[in-house]
Amino acid sequence: MPELRKDPVIGRWVIIATERAKRPHDFTTSPEGPVEGECPFCEGKEEKTPPEIFAFRKPNTQRNKSGWEIRVVPSISPILRIEGELNRHGAGMYDVMNGIGAHEVIIETPQHIANIADLSEEQIAKVFFAYIERIIDLGRDLRFKYVLVFKNYGWNAGGGRVKHSRSQLMALPVNPKRVKEELLGAKTYFEFKDRCIFCDIIRQELDSGERIIIDSDGIIAFSPFASRFPFETWIIPKHHSADFINSKRQEVFALARIMKLVLSKIKKALNDPSYNYIIHTAPFRIPKKPGYWKTLDEDYHWHIEIIPRLTRVAGFEWGSGFYINPTPPEEAAKYLRELEIG
Amino acid sequence: MPELRKDPVIGRWVIIATERAKRPHDFTTSPEGPVEGECPFCEGKEEKTPPEIFAFRKPNTQRNKSGWEIRVVPSISPILRIEGELNRHGAGMYDVMNGIGAHEVIIETPQHIANIADLSEEQIAKVFFAYIERIIDLGRDLRFKYVLVFKNYGWNAGGGRVKHSRSQLMALPVNPKRVKEELLGAKTYFEFKDRCIFCDIIRQELDSGERIIIDSDGIIAFSPFASRFPFETWIIPKHHSADFINSKRQEVFALARIMKLVLSKIKKALNDPSYNYIIHTAPFRIPKKPGYWKTLDEDYHWHIEIIPRLTRVAGFEWGSGFYINPTPPEEAAKYLRELEIG
Repeated sequence: MPELRKDPVIGRWVIIATERAKRPHDFTTSPEGPVEGECPFCEGKEEKTPPEIFAFRKPNTQRNKSGWEIRVVPSISPILRIEGELNRHGAGMYDVMNGIGAHEVIIETPQHIANIADLSEEQIAKVFFAYIERIIDLGRDLRFKYVLVFKNYGWNAGGGRVKHSRSQLMALPVNPKRVKEELLGAKTYFEFKDRCIFCDIIRQELDSGERIIIDSDGIIAFSPFASRFPFETWIIPKHHSADFINSKRQEVFALARIMKLVLSKIKKALNDPSYNYIIHTAPFRIPKKPGYWKTLDEDYHWHIEIIPRLTRVAGFEWGSGFYINPTPPEEAAKYLRELEIG
Repeated sequence: MPELRKDPVIGRWVIIATERAKRPHDFTTSPEGPVEGECPFCEGKEEKTPPEIFAFRKPNTQRNKSGWEIRVVPSISPILRIEGELNRHGAGMYDVMNGIGAHEVIIETPQHIANIADLSEEQIAKVFFAYIERIIDLGRDLRFKYVLVFKNYGWNAGGGRVKHSRSQLMALPVNPKRVKEELLGAKTYFEFKDRCIFCDIIRQELDSGERIIIDSDGIIAFSPFASRFPFETWIIPKHHSADFINSKRQEVFALARIMKLVLSKIKKALNDPSYNYIIHTAPFRIPKKPGYWKTLDEDYHWHIEIIPRLTRVAGFEWGSGFYINPTPPEEAAKYLRELEIG
């Protein structure tokens, strides 16, 4: 069973994979370019993955057979295990619990297409609808506090060898540190100002306009003021909403449109770079007393962070939590804003 | 002038390089293997670097000429500027200040040797003495709150093209987020327990022994319980000390000995991997009132974190502050502990 261990100073949880542990000779230092084998994610290869958890399918097609549009399967090498008890306990002064969670792969197309930017808007919308379905379903399991949805595209972003568009999700029994920090920052601001900090950011960005990449259908894409990475891009709905899963149907279509446009611009501008995106949404709430979670609805605001992987993160960043960004976000935004697609 | 910008939600400072900004075509996606040109750090090439700030030299040798043992020079491409005012100000809701600071390179040997592990213990001790001299000197500048000393070794660790052993330091006008988190974690623990958390960690590690790699001369090297990375190793003095710069002469020699041994073991075990190390020490203190900083002396404990760069950090880690470590620290420690060197 993998273990979740908590750093006693910083409070960061780390997953320690106790099975299939990597020994020194397991770390290849070869940098790049593994040969791609047979793709297990293509239509017709359904037996190559674990049985599907969820799918959007054409009428009259069978589970784990052809005919699907989006397919969600458990990871073949899951980091966390779905079965078992959390068994939180101490180990001397340290905190530890079993590595309980879900680790799923969202296969975004039956065709062998690498980049989600190259799918149709309609297909991308289906990807987001699948995310919503899975988050809602996993939220019924009271062991889980958070579902992290993310994409690793390309080798430098941890995207692996197989070039078939997919994303991943992990359901977690603890709120990740980064999520907690965001919630706390937003809450502190709300207590001081009685306004959502993200709503204020959106207003300021729209007023100045210099970091806006796209503003359409109630959603903006912009380069954040304190971007950590060159061409870092956030996508956020203009109207206040804490939970991604509460997005209305039309909002999801608008999101798909803007995601396709932004990712196509990044692909064109930066020569098809590796990238990650992460959905930042509010954690699951179990109301312990009436109104307990009210503040979260008011002070948090879901968004998507897209990080092209263009620079290497070195000792300075690891040691300090400090980032050096060689591209001012105003220049990145201007470049992406003015870039014509198609 | 570069800018320091603060993320309004998380409170993380980011350095935005406004000069020599990188445009899209400046990001090469070539992964590896740049050809090494002429080394500017070798003895006899002193004119290839900016004039030296500090050096350990043989008697009767001249500044910026041959005859040095350790040489500290300003970075040829400094991220921060030493001249100017901080000029802290707001930009709407955002916080910004000028990118004032120092960025120096510590050249660790006059010979063209890549890995500090291959220098003599005596030479490594000189490297640490040079760190101490530079931190003390920069601490006299009241604009600076922290000096971060770090090493990027090898291409995957941001070590650049030139294979000549060196480290870097940055003097910063703000305490980095990671440092603040550590200080806060340690302070909170101290308030609760009246004991240094690091002293407690050392005691628990010595009691169990399973994560200890080396225990000698009052310093231990161990794999932390919640290691983020495979073979992550911390080096920490057993006796309580908040400030690395207060290390006594004999302690520095002991540190050099253990650093050489640990880095040699990592080199041998993992086939000369890229790695980073970072010195975690207390920030500069300006006593505003008597006893103001007393708590910091009691509750913080300097140490060095060594991170071999074996795995890729992907979207999940960025998005969550969550790490997945495929090598249990107990196994990493056992392997390094038992590995014979030379």
